[in-house]
Amino acid sequence: MTSVETALSKLPADIVVRDQDIVSKYTTDFRHLYAGRSMAVLRPRTVAEVQLAVRTLAAHGVPVVPQGGNTSYCTAATPNRDGSEIVISLERLNKVRELDIGNLSMTVDAGCVLSDLQDAALDNDLMLPLSLGSEQSCQIGGNLSTNAGGIAVVKHGMARELVLGLEVVLPDGSLFSDLNPLRKNNSGYDMKQLFIGGEGTLGIITGASLKLVRKPRAVVTAFLAIREISVLSTLLDRAQRFTGDAVTSFEYMSNSSLDLLLSKRPNLRRPLEEASDHYVLLEAATSSHLLDLRGAAEILLEEAMSDGLVIDGAVAANEEHRSHFWHLRENIPEGEVLNGGSVKHDVSVRTSRLAAFIVDASDIVRSCCSEAILSVYGHVGDGNVHFNVVPPHTAQTHEFKEHFERTVSPLIYNLAAQMGGSFSAEYGIGRSKLGLLSEYGDPGKIALMRKLKTALDPNGIMNPGKVIPVA
Amino acid sequence: MTSVETALSKLPADIVVRDQDIVSKYTTDFRHLYAGRSMAVLRPRTVAEVQLAVRTLAAHGVPVVPQGGNTSYCTAATPNRDGSEIVISLERLNKVRELDIGNLSMTVDAGCVLSDLQDAALDNDLMLPLSLGSEQSCQIGGNLSTNAGGIAVVKHGMARELVLGLEVVLPDGSLFSDLNPLRKNNSGYDMKQLFIGGEGTLGIITGASLKLVRKPRAVVTAFLAIREISVLSTLLDRAQRFTGDAVTSFEYMSNSSLDLLLSKRPNLRRPLEEASDHYVLLEAATSSHLLDLRGAAEILLEEAMSDGLVIDGAVAANEEHRSHFWHLRENIPEGEVLNGGSVKHDVSVRTSRLAAFIVDASDIVRSCCSEAILSVYGHVGDGNVHFNVVPPHTAQTHEFKEHFERTVSPLIYNLAAQMGGSFSAEYGIGRSKLGLLSEYGDPGKIALMRKLKTALDPNGIMNPGKVIPVA
Repeated sequence: MTSVETALSKLPADIVVRDQDIVSKYTTDFRHLYAGRSMAVLRPRTVAEVQLAVRTLAAHGVPVVPQGGNTSYCTAATPNRDGSEIVISLERLNKVRELDIGNLSMTVDAGCVLSDLQDAALDNDLMLPLSLGSEQSCQIGGNLSTNAGGIAVVKHGMARELVLGLEVVLPDGSLFSDLNPLRKNNSGYDMKQLFIGGEGTLGIITGASLKLVRKPRAVVTAFLAIREISVLSTLLDRAQRFTGDAVTSFEYMSNSSLDLLLSKRPNLRRPLEEASDHYVLLEAATSSHLLDLRGAAEILLEEAMSDGLVIDGAVAANEEHRSHFWHLRENIPEGEVLNGGSVKHDVSVRTSRLAAFIVDASDIVRSCCSEAILSVYGHVGDGNVHFNVVPPHTAQTHEFKEHFERTVSPLIYNLAAQMGGSFSAEYGIGRSKLGLLSEYGDPGKIALMRKLKTALDPNGIMNPGKVIPVA
Repeated sequence: MTSVETALSKLPADIVVRDQDIVSKYTTDFRHLYAGRSMAVLRPRTVAEVQLAVRTLAAHGVPVVPQGGNTSYCTAATPNRDGSEIVISLERLNKVRELDIGNLSMTVDAGCVLSDLQDAALDNDLMLPLSLGSEQSCQIGGNLSTNAGGIAVVKHGMARELVLGLEVVLPDGSLFSDLNPLRKNNSGYDMKQLFIGGEGTLGIITGASLKLVRKPRAVVTAFLAIREISVLSTLLDRAQRFTGDAVTSFEYMSNSSLDLLLSKRPNLRRPLEEASDHYVLLEAATSSHLLDLRGAAEILLEEAMSDGLVIDGAVAANEEHRSHFWHLRENIPEGEVLNGGSVKHDVSVRTSRLAAFIVDASDIVRSCCSEAILSVYGHVGDGNVHFNVVPPHTAQTHEFKEHFERTVSPLIYNLAAQMGGSFSAEYGIGRSKLGLLSEYGDPGKIALMRKLKTALDPNGIMNPGKVIPVA
């Protein structure tokens, strides 16, 4: 027997899935960028079984690939192609362990689907303020392992800021457990921080204690056509000042992103009469029944229109309007898929430089590749834009993307780097951004990352080939 | 020459202070708990000089003790007694490097005094929302190294949550630099997290990029006499709901804490007519000129009084009132000092359990040591209470404290541990809480801490004898 087979034979049979029809769903990533192989997927039911699996595989030198909802954009949860790695899915660890209303916290298994946790909080008049496109299938363990972002970061921060406690199976199978949901705890190094954003390369997150917030009493959602992209930061600043920093989402949509969607979904339409090249979806919320947030938002809109920052705008009058606004925003990635998919650049810069980045990067694309279709949108309230490029209808999709990534993407990333920005704002590194990290990452930082990886996972068992560039 | 002398001789003479009258100010801690020794204090003027100092000392095996404002409560910045360690003071690295209004950020030297940075932000109509008792002398590098808390955590989080970027001189003298002030950046492990709360044992923070917030347009401050301690969590919840989570401080003061202060400062008085055993200082703030925060606070107070949660209360009508309220709260530690000082327990539990902790811990003290004077106050909005004990007037102060710490403090810490709490909410470990970390810390966590320390500082050069319990 190979060492993989020997290791698998020592595990409870009912957590080992060998049927390749099933296994293949775990070994291919969400975007079909990488098809890996695995002899088996393990589906442990308890934390102890995760420990047993890791300890057993590690003892036989078999690397493991932790997997949540398998929604990584950079193949962070996909095994390699030689079949030597075993996927451990967390999907059966899917219970809410505890919810403490008075402490505004919940402690959950890593395999819980994000939207189920959102629902569990809402059932208790609370809210888990983490929301992203894949929320119906992504799992909280993956969200934390990748320090997920999404549409509420401007108010509530990245996933990291929602973590009060963490439970992690380490590469030797031992358990790090720090689940007390405390707001303040300076009792030694805050070790949980290592595993948040560690993409499963330092251990497998099996549980977490999360901050919750009070459920909003009033939500105001506005769809705004803005005069030009340079007004973004003024508009955000003003929105924050008028609402008392109650802005929960400040999302930009280029008209071309909307066009891509609307051209394929004729039943959808823009909610505004005036046309513009640039739109903002703004949402603000308050837990107060006393403060007039809607009144403040209406004054904001009036003033922004009379000043010419905003050409046209609508405040959602009801949940149907609101859901229409969000449907447009949330389906932009689908619009790209329906048009052949996109080359994605998940860039962040300072919020004060974001409009300039979008203008300059757009110029680069126009001058290098005039037929390319820009699809620019994203979380501009956090300085994060998805600067995506869709192949022209006449192009061979695959060839176009490959050519663009080789010739134009580097110019976009160079621009981001020159502006002090990041080539990966929220997607992480995984396998597909290792080259970018080598090129743009600070060598001192990469050296520190290697030291840390070696210290915690000396045998390189845990999600190898991800995050850390090859020396 | 000894190796210390050899190393010192290789450094620029004008950064080496050998005069022991000066050096002794750096080798004795703020609370006079520990008197260390050092042959010299180094006062580098640049990051490059910090690197040179660390590299040179490390090459000769001389350990270094980084020091900011020297305000640690647990001797985290004090050298040991044998004179073998050299203090590196960051005080001359005291410039604001850059402030970006549009990005709400500033990049600063580690040696900047916290209140100077608060002022720099205010000068730009912004605010650095970190505020604590020692803000006139503590330095931001120390605040970040200890993940400082303070009076605004309920709204703005611990110091960690204010950090966008960090610059650190590592134990080998090399530089880790990650100062871009980005809101989102998932490009590899977030290494800066290690040094926040690392208490100078993994490297010396030399610079930081910090989040700023908009300066409030309206601030409402209320001094409330509450019926009993069990109403704390209901009152906090209601305050958050009425103000739309605008509460920036929610500070508890026991009447006995106020008594200690007022007995020594006869010019001060309580701002309320009704007496109570328990007071809350509540502050809420908004950046909006449109939302009626004061109106909401007044309704809150009316309802809380009619429901009997609050016996008596006053909303500050002007800055003079506000500053009187805060003067009382901020001088409670001074009240303790004027009464012989205190045995401090910096405990956190879930906010939902805090009142129960205070009640039970008070019972323990009363039954074990009936003559002790309780001084209980703190940041209860974060689940953090300073559960302090002042010697009775008749006692020998030193003997009382020693006896109390040996016999009663363990019972208080046991209670906190049973309730899933922490023995060090915001003070850190330093040297004086190593025993508590050994006793109450999770062994798996301590093992991980050791791995990390060994990986980053294999020769144990950096602030030895702190944070990591001896194996």
